[in-house]
Amino acid sequence: MSDPTGDGTGGSARRGRRGGGGAAARRAARLEKRIFQAPAILRQLPVMDLLSLEAIEIIERNAETILEEIGVTFVDNPAALARWREAGADVVEDRVRIPRGLARTLCASAPSHFELQARNPERSVPIGGSHTVFAPVYGPPFVSDLDQGRRYATMADFEKLVKLVYMSPHLHISGGTLCEPTDIAVNKRHLDMVSAHLRWSDKPVMGSVTAPQRAADSVELVKIAFGDQFRSDQPSMVSLININSPLSFDGTMMQALEVYAEAGQACIVSPFIVGGAMAPVSIAGTLAQVLAEALAGIAYSQLVKPGAPVLFGAFVSSIDMNSGAPSFGTPEAATILAGAAQLARRLNLPFRSGGALCGSKAPDAQAAFESASTLWPTMTSGVNFALHAAGWLEGGLVASFEKLVMDADQLGALQRFAGSPIDLSENGQALDAVREVGPGGHYLGCAHTQANFQTAYWRSDVADYRPYETWAEDGAIETAARANARWKQLLAEYQAPTIDSGVDEALQEFVTRRKQAEPDAFV
Amino acid sequence: MSDPTGDGTGGSARRGRRGGGGAAARRAARLEKRIFQAPAILRQLPVMDLLSLEAIEIIERNAETILEEIGVTFVDNPAALARWREAGADVVEDRVRIPRGLARTLCASAPSHFELQARNPERSVPIGGSHTVFAPVYGPPFVSDLDQGRRYATMADFEKLVKLVYMSPHLHISGGTLCEPTDIAVNKRHLDMVSAHLRWSDKPVMGSVTAPQRAADSVELVKIAFGDQFRSDQPSMVSLININSPLSFDGTMMQALEVYAEAGQACIVSPFIVGGAMAPVSIAGTLAQVLAEALAGIAYSQLVKPGAPVLFGAFVSSIDMNSGAPSFGTPEAATILAGAAQLARRLNLPFRSGGALCGSKAPDAQAAFESASTLWPTMTSGVNFALHAAGWLEGGLVASFEKLVMDADQLGALQRFAGSPIDLSENGQALDAVREVGPGGHYLGCAHTQANFQTAYWRSDVADYRPYETWAEDGAIETAARANARWKQLLAEYQAPTIDSGVDEALQEFVTRRKQAEPDAFV
Repeated sequence: MSDPTGDGTGGSARRGRRGGGGAAARRAARLEKRIFQAPAILRQLPVMDLLSLEAIEIIERNAETILEEIGVTFVDNPAALARWREAGADVVEDRVRIPRGLARTLCASAPSHFELQARNPERSVPIGGSHTVFAPVYGPPFVSDLDQGRRYATMADFEKLVKLVYMSPHLHISGGTLCEPTDIAVNKRHLDMVSAHLRWSDKPVMGSVTAPQRAADSVELVKIAFGDQFRSDQPSMVSLININSPLSFDGTMMQALEVYAEAGQACIVSPFIVGGAMAPVSIAGTLAQVLAEALAGIAYSQLVKPGAPVLFGAFVSSIDMNSGAPSFGTPEAATILAGAAQLARRLNLPFRSGGALCGSKAPDAQAAFESASTLWPTMTSGVNFALHAAGWLEGGLVASFEKLVMDADQLGALQRFAGSPIDLSENGQALDAVREVGPGGHYLGCAHTQANFQTAYWRSDVADYRPYETWAEDGAIETAARANARWKQLLAEYQAPTIDSGVDEALQEFVTRRKQAEPDAFV
Repeated sequence: MSDPTGDGTGGSARRGRRGGGGAAARRAARLEKRIFQAPAILRQLPVMDLLSLEAIEIIERNAETILEEIGVTFVDNPAALARWREAGADVVEDRVRIPRGLARTLCASAPSHFELQARNPERSVPIGGSHTVFAPVYGPPFVSDLDQGRRYATMADFEKLVKLVYMSPHLHISGGTLCEPTDIAVNKRHLDMVSAHLRWSDKPVMGSVTAPQRAADSVELVKIAFGDQFRSDQPSMVSLININSPLSFDGTMMQALEVYAEAGQACIVSPFIVGGAMAPVSIAGTLAQVLAEALAGIAYSQLVKPGAPVLFGAFVSSIDMNSGAPSFGTPEAATILAGAAQLARRLNLPFRSGGALCGSKAPDAQAAFESASTLWPTMTSGVNFALHAAGWLEGGLVASFEKLVMDADQLGALQRFAGSPIDLSENGQALDAVREVGPGGHYLGCAHTQANFQTAYWRSDVADYRPYETWAEDGAIETAARANARWKQLLAEYQAPTIDSGVDEALQEFVTRRKQAEPDAFV
């Protein structure tokens, strides 16, 4: 790669940092702008309540019926069964039937909102209420970019993704498994992933959930990184606990939840549903099951530790009945997302859903339409924590470098749309501008325009705004190719956040020690 | 073009219609499905009210201040000035200053909703209230497709576009100037355009506005096509009257409005705003100007004929201050769209805005993100009539064949999302399915899934749902190329709606006679 910036400037970024000229100053100003971190979105728009009161009451009643009559299973987890028996549930083998109303009562001790701490306190974010935060893609075994195509992900890819998320002001969370670093042993990669987030970013992080020991390691790493800033009353990480829908709670996942809850760390308790496979092919049926699952999982978190911070999660896609593949950005998924958000608000709990989900194999128009058709309802439904909000491709099998910057750009637009109060000041009303310009005039040169144009309109970093002729002469470059240049530029401009050298060494020492404690496992 | 269907079947569509085998029957069933016309959307979701009461009151007060103090111009239109003077406005030269409250009072005689008649009465649609209808792109001088690229539009392109709109069930309106047929004389092309809509489609049409005589011709053509079905109490066409923002009403446009209003035909009275050029670079300022302009224009329609059916229109984009180009899909445009919808509801008038607007030069991810970022607020803001809802590319300079089918596909998803009540029947609740499957099971084979899967989820006609490997082996075809195949397939399957042969001849005779009445003009 002869030009790592991809913008034709070659090494000028490096020269610029050393130099003192006007170009260097401009580049420094641009760099500073890029490392700017947007705050959590405080939504200025009403939530889109799709469910009527009648629908809510039916769904809530059916969820209680599911819990009471059908029940849920807590697999390979005798401690959980004991807790449920103690709480008054009917436990037969691993089946837990929960008396009507019990789960909802237990959920009441979970906080309605909390502050998720970041290593850099300026990047801590509120979770819940009218706030929305964006987190990147989670879980893909593959990565792709336009240069090397689709391939198994490595730790080198993972670190690049951490850096790109760090450089994206509208991603509030550094994330968790941005991709699976398949070149690292399965039982050790959590150490590299969590420490990479803590080292190469200073945004809030997500912990490992693939074994209780790995969850405990994640907590230890965060404690080392946070040092004196570690607070016992507000979580310093949030982790994704998927439910094995329908109605089954995996022992490993639940034991990870137990570790986090006992350490006062936040968990997203999330049904994982491909409608038609893991839930009924109907909206009301899926919502009843989602609610039953979230109630049972969140209630369990409160049995482990009353007051443990949790989010009501809902990952919902639908199945394409021709191919059997999950499909994304469908109207039914959007409706379920909005309905689940409403049910979570009735429980007074923070809600996780949405993101830039798509099934497309390429970062093309299908990807964009599908992603936007999830991102918009994410925003209008009042999601508090949007995982997979950037970089998701091919049903989550792939983390795409191009899609990451394309999505992150859209998140900036959504933050502007949802989070900006309408300026009603005299300047915002702009009556003097209308007076100055008058009928048939134009505003380009008027005083109000000159004073306000630089901040008046959101501007994409990925879109091409030039006239057709200029664009065509310049090679008719489409969006994905521009995004390819942009992520390279961001990586070239990346500068690591500061970290105390003692803390850095302690993180490395912990990772090394834990890696030496057991042999590599690759399954 | 050796294979006009683009799907590799060559002439099998034609053979299929003659043949009697199973393949022919399946093709006929598919064809019928495609010519199915969706009804107008009856929105099941709450409208997204972004403006606080405080904001509304400020904007409404400022709009009245603009009308009273600055006024509007009615250019080259002595009759309009006389009407305004008569109504009590302060008229000096062509400037009309409207006393506070007068315009709003005049608007009260406009109907809150009406039925827009189609030549095929089954395709008539309600305009206003909780209904939304979609109309295709309007106005581009260019067309483009992946085969021939970007070029000046011709009448042959226009007819293809009429046919594609006819084949798109979620486009409710046949449209108007789908593209400018630049191979036909400027003073005659309206005859070919309106008669093509009436001949090759049976959905509601839009009339010419480029001269009062052309408006009168449009009315005559509709009267011929509708025959006995022509109703004087409900309009049979709707036409787009743009305001020359800021605050100026062009004589030609207003005289076209006069023709339509006097004939009982509907008009969209629409500020046409690139924010920063035709309105202040602020949301509250733009909304006050939009409201002032719509109030003045709609009030004028009611001075011409009280009770004339009109829509409050708002075409809003913002300017990219780096390039000076209009930009689309921006958060500010979405906010203004939602705000204007709210102001129109306060006037109890149908509202036109939104669409699949984009600035992208290609039907790529930028186009899709920008279009979705207009279509979603179109839907959630309660737009009644969405012009440019399919086919718009490059800031409206281009009608794209590929984008038309991509957008029309999205409209199907939006119709499903916004227009489908949540099924709360016993089948919709699906409790028996949850009982049958139980914890840890799966739903693919269960009775409820088998009974419902065919209609449970919306399915795109443009997206590719196959696994990566299959898609890649098959050439890794991206969305735009699939859309290219799809529009060719739709054109191959197109069958003209029936029309009485006498009516058809009368339309042709009128067009021929009117064309012979004057020499060609090319400006």
